[in-house]
Amino acid sequence: MTVNFQQLAVTGVQSLQPYQPGKPIDELARELGLNEADIVKLASNENPLGPSPKALAAAQAALTDMTLYPDGAGFVLKKALCDKLGIQPQQIVLGNGSSDILDFITRVFVNDGDNVVTSQHAFAIYGLVAKMVGAECINVPAKNFGHDLDAMAAAINDRTRIVFVTNPNNPTGTWLKKDELVAFLNKVPAQVLVLLDEAYFEYVQEADYPDGIQLLPQYPNLIIARTFSKAYGLAALRVGYSVSSPELADLMNRVRPPFNVNSVALAAAAAALADDDYVARSVAENTAGMQQLTNAFAAMNLSYIPSVGNFIAFKVPAGVKAMDVYNQLLGKGVIVRPVGNYEMPDYLRVSIGTAAENTAFIHALQAVLS
Amino acid sequence: MTVNFQQLAVTGVQSLQPYQPGKPIDELARELGLNEADIVKLASNENPLGPSPKALAAAQAALTDMTLYPDGAGFVLKKALCDKLGIQPQQIVLGNGSSDILDFITRVFVNDGDNVVTSQHAFAIYGLVAKMVGAECINVPAKNFGHDLDAMAAAINDRTRIVFVTNPNNPTGTWLKKDELVAFLNKVPAQVLVLLDEAYFEYVQEADYPDGIQLLPQYPNLIIARTFSKAYGLAALRVGYSVSSPELADLMNRVRPPFNVNSVALAAAAAALADDDYVARSVAENTAGMQQLTNAFAAMNLSYIPSVGNFIAFKVPAGVKAMDVYNQLLGKGVIVRPVGNYEMPDYLRVSIGTAAENTAFIHALQAVLS
Repeated sequence: MTVNFQQLAVTGVQSLQPYQPGKPIDELARELGLNEADIVKLASNENPLGPSPKALAAAQAALTDMTLYPDGAGFVLKKALCDKLGIQPQQIVLGNGSSDILDFITRVFVNDGDNVVTSQHAFAIYGLVAKMVGAECINVPAKNFGHDLDAMAAAINDRTRIVFVTNPNNPTGTWLKKDELVAFLNKVPAQVLVLLDEAYFEYVQEADYPDGIQLLPQYPNLIIARTFSKAYGLAALRVGYSVSSPELADLMNRVRPPFNVNSVALAAAAAALADDDYVARSVAENTAGMQQLTNAFAAMNLSYIPSVGNFIAFKVPAGVKAMDVYNQLLGKGVIVRPVGNYEMPDYLRVSIGTAAENTAFIHALQAVLS
Repeated sequence: MTVNFQQLAVTGVQSLQPYQPGKPIDELARELGLNEADIVKLASNENPLGPSPKALAAAQAALTDMTLYPDGAGFVLKKALCDKLGIQPQQIVLGNGSSDILDFITRVFVNDGDNVVTSQHAFAIYGLVAKMVGAECINVPAKNFGHDLDAMAAAINDRTRIVFVTNPNNPTGTWLKKDELVAFLNKVPAQVLVLLDEAYFEYVQEADYPDGIQLLPQYPNLIIARTFSKAYGLAALRVGYSVSSPELADLMNRVRPPFNVNSVALAAAAAALADDDYVARSVAENTAGMQQLTNAFAAMNLSYIPSVGNFIAFKVPAGVKAMDVYNQLLGKGVIVRPVGNYEMPDYLRVSIGTAAENTAFIHALQAVLS
């Protein structure tokens, strides 16, 4: 007897398409026979500065204990987060990247047949984790590429368990002001959770950009997710965390695998938190690079979505296919990110690199479009 | 309005108790004011040799790319596994530790109201991952502390989706011969999956111990789980994997988070696979240490369960409480593992350490029991 195991899988998994990450440098090098050093990857919103010296030293030191299990409680990293953020360890859940956090909150609260609400053009993982547990992900149409919070509040129904709000949003770079966010939170029913994803928090320089952690005392249904993968420069190591009420953190920690963050990641993240200079340089480099790219887009008459993140989405000219531009850039050793799966088929997203990487991208784009 | 979020959690999570890992060295040092160097941890079946030099060098080199996302496809590690095991990349699922694998297979195939079957005294994570999705874990009574495969086959009913078989079993150290395992596989219905957990595979020296991977062609419902945390000495880094049919691997890869194994772990694991000398030394040290401990138990008139793993469970004398022995050993800076949660309240499990660590444990145990 031949068994069709696909038909035996739980409903949500049967049609699940895994997340498509940015193309890795070594993969492109293998495919095109290029040297890795000649490839510019601006596809995954990675920090272009290279490692924080403090994080690197801590990671190296942690390798000495390679044979021992990680501290599943994350004592040292949680203490560093508490000192930095003015919170209590009981409020923290550590994730193998902040995508772990999105999965945990969904597994804790969302049943087969429930739904979650998010915005069109928001992070793909929200829909994936919902689908895995058999839930629907309601993508509320965006307004000028940003969240339409009134419409998102109106979309909440009696099967809604979580609303995923991203500030700033990836891949659009749009953001929500504090008064907009507060007005939204006041509308959300008390039993519906709000996951506020602040993966790009450290890059935002706008005065009226809200710090979600400051809102926690007023909103017991709020969970803040952050990551070390961006401004802290630890994408390779996978560390994210959430801050919430102790009650919500306790529930999420029940579904957290006991050693989900590895020892090198724990040590590097604690050290990275203390490297204010690195984060300051990262933000300054990003601000300069954003200016460099928007200047170039303007000079090329390319439309773009103003962004406060470490990436920017630009529109390919009329009559040109974004996937053709993407593939021709690949051929020149430049990796950017197609965002057709975000309902932005005419856009490409480019991460802000070093000045030299940005220049390489601009030259390649000019050559492709000329 | 105050919301009770616990009551809003999915049913399985409401009563879930997280896995209790072995006590970390730094935690005991903080609690008792001891130096970490004076503490002997024989609680988590870790490799006592210290890092494989090849794995350590590869991990250090990987830190250079700390700011870049891992290769989510695990190309290099999968190639190394294929070369070593004679399998195809499409058969592999990489896990952030092999506990990830247990979670993936459960999320793919087990619905709320289904059940999984395993043995009494088997690994606690099986029951936890089942409970998270609302399923029952049927613990079939053990026979002489080992799996009673006939009873396990008989326990399968029409809601059974997975049988978890551990060979050798932790924390008992018991094992199944090839003919026993094959007879069992022949009894399991074709649509019921068998997860064969071989975390301690490399330590077993017995001639009639089966290699699960060799059985895959005959049993399309079979999945083999292995880990780099034990004989390969990478517990800190979290790497495990499964080998199965490509069809099952594809389904499991759909629920795998895209970057679940971090870059340092991927690099170290690929290098560790090539360090045959390290594994050979690990096995030799383990065999000698097992002899040292069983000799000591015999001299102390302590009963123990013969083990083929890198750990052994011994029985405390009548009239003595295992938790008292555990706590008194902690006071002497020796960490072992209570196994009351494995329905073995009169036993303690001790990992095989170096000769010096084993001696320290034996002396501490003699002092506690005298």
